Amino acid sequence: MPDSAVLTLNAGSSSLKFAIFTNGERPRRLWSGAIERIGLPGAQFRLSDARDTVVREETGNFEDHDTALKRLLFTTEHEASGVKLVAVGHRIAHGGPDCDCPELVTPALRARLQQLTVLAPLHLPANLSGINAVQIARPDLTQIACFDTSFHHDLPHIARLSGLPRALQDEGLRRYGFHGLSYEYIVKALRDANVAVDAERIVVAHLGNGTSMCAIRDGKSLETTMGFSTIAGLPMGTRSGDIDPGLLLHLLIDKEMTPEAVSQLLYAESGLLGLSGISRNMQDLLQRPDDKATEAVAYFCYHARRHLAGLTAALGGIERLVFTGGIGANAPQVRAGICSGLGYLGIVLDKTANLSGDPVISSRSAGVTVEVRQTDEEAMIAGHVHDFMASQPMAREA
Amino acid sequence: MPDSAVLTLNAGSSSLKFAIFTNGERPRRLWSGAIERIGLPGAQFRLSDARDTVVREETGNFEDHDTALKRLLFTTEHEASGVKLVAVGHRIAHGGPDCDCPELVTPALRARLQQLTVLAPLHLPANLSGINAVQIARPDLTQIACFDTSFHHDLPHIARLSGLPRALQDEGLRRYGFHGLSYEYIVKALRDANVAVDAERIVVAHLGNGTSMCAIRDGKSLETTMGFSTIAGLPMGTRSGDIDPGLLLHLLIDKEMTPEAVSQLLYAESGLLGLSGISRNMQDLLQRPDDKATEAVAYFCYHARRHLAGLTAALGGIERLVFTGGIGANAPQVRAGICSGLGYLGIVLDKTANLSGDPVISSRSAGVTVEVRQTDEEAMIAGHVHDFMASQPMAREA
Repeated sequence: MPDSAVLTLNAGSSSLKFAIFTNGERPRRLWSGAIERIGLPGAQFRLSDARDTVVREETGNFEDHDTALKRLLFTTEHEASGVKLVAVGHRIAHGGPDCDCPELVTPALRARLQQLTVLAPLHLPANLSGINAVQIARPDLTQIACFDTSFHHDLPHIARLSGLPRALQDEGLRRYGFHGLSYEYIVKALRDANVAVDAERIVVAHLGNGTSMCAIRDGKSLETTMGFSTIAGLPMGTRSGDIDPGLLLHLLIDKEMTPEAVSQLLYAESGLLGLSGISRNMQDLLQRPDDKATEAVAYFCYHARRHLAGLTAALGGIERLVFTGGIGANAPQVRAGICSGLGYLGIVLDKTANLSGDPVISSRSAGVTVEVRQTDEEAMIAGHVHDFMASQPMAREA
Repeated sequence: MPDSAVLTLNAGSSSLKFAIFTNGERPRRLWSGAIERIGLPGAQFRLSDARDTVVREETGNFEDHDTALKRLLFTTEHEASGVKLVAVGHRIAHGGPDCDCPELVTPALRARLQQLTVLAPLHLPANLSGINAVQIARPDLTQIACFDTSFHHDLPHIARLSGLPRALQDEGLRRYGFHGLSYEYIVKALRDANVAVDAERIVVAHLGNGTSMCAIRDGKSLETTMGFSTIAGLPMGTRSGDIDPGLLLHLLIDKEMTPEAVSQLLYAESGLLGLSGISRNMQDLLQRPDDKATEAVAYFCYHARRHLAGLTAALGGIERLVFTGGIGANAPQVRAGICSGLGYLGIVLDKTANLSGDPVISSRSAGVTVEVRQTDEEAMIAGHVHDFMASQPMAREA
């Protein structure tokens, strides 16, 4: 009999990223992959095995998420393996103000997410497409929504506020925070490694294509750099990070840019790409002996350093710093750039350990433990799905 | 023969704030005052003597800056004292990218400032009205422009950048920084007090109606919280401080607010006023036993604390913190709120000294010296005027 398995889905506007895990308390990754350029010519389908070896790579055309998902299901259930899917866990960008844990996908939840699209216009419609595609292809599968905002659900009241008039904030324009599944995974991994999470003040730096940092106390989010939106905080591949509001008003009023053009500018043309004029990709920039590339990296590190220090102030001190995400895990130059000059906080790297990407990269005598950890949002989702089904065995009937 | 004297002018859209100083290396304040509600019914004229005792307070009508200035000149030169004005020093909000020191007001400078109004639309037109009023009333007086951006002229390149595409930044959309005359005054006062300014890493917190902080190394601005505009950084009386750019896009795109309405919101209806719904004035809020007032103050302190920590990271450590501005000098609760939990940086207040507003308010054993100092931008301007005229005795002929 085939293994009972869980599919995790992260549906973007033209992509489906997925993984398949054993269905258990400690989910084990069996397959992972992605379908990209959905609805565009030359879509790509890639499947890797548990050792991250690509076992299938094809180019084709998928007109929409429905057809892409069907192909994914056919390949993973019939061609490549013999897993028997019992549930799907979705990575959902936004759960709104009331959402603090994974939820069974029901018509009511879908309606709620539809209403929330205004809060995450780039992500939620795509996430919903993923849910709908599963509903059409496999209505028998339990679907669980896991939200990237949930980990920040108990953010202290002060951290939810912005400087706007209260009436606007009472309407729901609060700070939410994102990358919650990554932070949750790191906290769980720290607990599994017997770190005294509840006794430490921890900053996790999730540095990937999107970047944010989270200040963690008692294992909970105390403050984070993204807020209402995913542009806020640190600069990113193409996103600006924090920008002087007066500069935006200048673009709108004096330069007569439309809000939509400013949105495009801030989400897609700024950050590393905008500053370098070369690439959104940190590894590309690190390999270029180009002044503008160097400056873009320096800008990234400078602002990450200031945000790290600001989060440390919110915590009142720091015992542990964890780097994760594609950049955090793989770019020693960036880790060194961020930590540069922070000896006064007790943050001192061991150069050799940092270059080697050792699990612990702080100097032995340093007061703050600095770690490099892989994050795994998909494993976190698979774990949530298992736990949800174990706690609510009737979920499939809902 | 009457004393040779210097008039300092800070011209706002409906106000003229002024002071009269002796013309010397160490300018001594003789008079100060303000005309407010210019162009509105019930304008107010107030004159105080060197001891800050109000010696004249009248209500009247002044249709424009010209008539207000004439009254000011008549009173100060003829009625109240016998000073002989030789020059006027103007506080100018913005000097643009090329301006690093006080300049003689010439037709060329006026034309340049006219071009710069787009960078400081709320302040520069009013500043120019002040210059024009003097030109009309007393063309014999030397006029010197002192810029609030000059102190930040040598801001490191990295601190001038924002996360936008380089092409836009090359057009002049750089970070400038403000409150420069206040920071310059504080640095001068520290030197006068034999503080080893060049050996210390200093943060000055200018907390007034407008609030900003400056990281100072070698006596120069290394980083500051305002940038392109005067909204950025800390929350203020009615200004928002930093806001998630995605939140602004939401107001513009989803709530269909006009850029002008968002500008009004961020400049005039946010910050302490917006959060409290009660008052823009910190002293008002501190005296109210109201949850929203308390929360507005807590928000202010929380963000000031995070910014202070961020600037400390830019400096790589801190030896001295100076509180100044109306709030910085007079609100011990706010100083305590900002410094709360920063013991890990060596910032620990002496409660009694803080409550008494002593010059030094840090605990004796603390690593960081925390000071309270009055700032005096007007004295800084008067000193600049004297120094300029002494170095360029032909200036009046220009």
